[in-house]
Amino acid sequence: MSSTAKTLGIVGGMGPMATALLYEKVTALTSAEKDQDHLKILINSNPQIPDRTAHIVAGGEDPRAELIATSRHLETMGADFLIMPCNTAHYFYEDIVAQIGIPFLHMINETAAHIKKAFENTTTVGILATQGTCQSGVYHKALEAQGMSPVTPDPEMQKHVTDLIYDIKGGKKVTDKGFLEAVESLKSRGATCFILGCTELSVADKIFQFNGPFVDPLHVIATAAIRFAGGKTR
Amino acid sequence: MSSTAKTLGIVGGMGPMATALLYEKVTALTSAEKDQDHLKILINSNPQIPDRTAHIVAGGEDPRAELIATSRHLETMGADFLIMPCNTAHYFYEDIVAQIGIPFLHMINETAAHIKKAFENTTTVGILATQGTCQSGVYHKALEAQGMSPVTPDPEMQKHVTDLIYDIKGGKKVTDKGFLEAVESLKSRGATCFILGCTELSVADKIFQFNGPFVDPLHVIATAAIRFAGGKTR
Repeated sequence: MSSTAKTLGIVGGMGPMATALLYEKVTALTSAEKDQDHLKILINSNPQIPDRTAHIVAGGEDPRAELIATSRHLETMGADFLIMPCNTAHYFYEDIVAQIGIPFLHMINETAAHIKKAFENTTTVGILATQGTCQSGVYHKALEAQGMSPVTPDPEMQKHVTDLIYDIKGGKKVTDKGFLEAVESLKSRGATCFILGCTELSVADKIFQFNGPFVDPLHVIATAAIRFAGGKTR
Repeated sequence: MSSTAKTLGIVGGMGPMATALLYEKVTALTSAEKDQDHLKILINSNPQIPDRTAHIVAGGEDPRAELIATSRHLETMGADFLIMPCNTAHYFYEDIVAQIGIPFLHMINETAAHIKKAFENTTTVGILATQGTCQSGVYHKALEAQGMSPVTPDPEMQKHVTDLIYDIKGGKKVTDKGFLEAVESLKSRGATCFILGCTELSVADKIFQFNGPFVDPLHVIATAAIRFAGGKTR
């Protein structure tokens, strides 16, 4: 990595396992022969950021102040640009960038742009995420801006997805049975590709190695971050 | 996690994959039901710290200044105590702690103390590490302080261990064949337990799931850090 490379800051802890996975992905996807070829990375893993879904869906504590403080802290620490491995938190993206002075790569928009390029004939995209992400409309907005339509699971199927996400957050034993039923239900409604739109589902993908046209936003943002920093991807 | 919990700082990037693994281990070993139960963690992943082994073995660039700067940076950022997932770098431990004002848990000493407790009748311990770690004597000193003797591979066997470590650092395809030969050679010389004394060997353990009396210092220090921070281990 050249000395002009930018330092990557990661707004983390939502949850910490997903942040660890993103850090691992950035490292694995960087073309490097020795330690010194890797990016300089600063991580603030702050699990005290209030639950994003609980705020959007049920009026729980507002996470904005803690999201902004964590991002500003990384800027102060020397980060040249930021990324945030939490889909739901992107609902607050505009409020964060208004309070910082460095670029912030938008994981949801990067993912929608990636799908447009990688799955040329896709018109309908299935969103597998928390209820908060679905209700927040972040993926709807990004996909519609690229001329594609989103579909989300019905309430019964959404419960399977939510259960898997919170079981992973809680470090419980998990099964992918209900989750795969939810995927089938979206397929029957026309979806030809599926966003693993919650970082805990990226963790689930590592466990179960889902087979099919799944798009992992953590993979997309890791690749985008390496290029933005001035590094080379494998 | 209570509000009196201490913030953990990780002096990272040596290499980044090992740091990601430590972060994952701290997260997996913390007794938590939701994001908010996890530790607050700051990571400075600085792969520009000069190669520790190259300095100790061949008089390469001195990593001390960069190690101290990275540690002080974490202290300034708000870390309450530090750990460092690089065995070889502990050769410079005294020089670092002289320049910081917060506690720094010593991974090598914690590991030797753990072996003394967990493997009661062990007198001879095999060290699998870089040539730099072996030559630096960090494990020798720590084990002898606990009344145990270290054994290290002969030059031919050491080459197998070194190759595996640097292949993992370089993201190459790896095999554990030569490494397991080195383990056998230490067993024939009396070792009854083996330290995975390089964080890349912790990564190798994740790939190959070594079977036997192996001790992973990353696991030992992750557990120690959770307890020191005021958290509960699983």
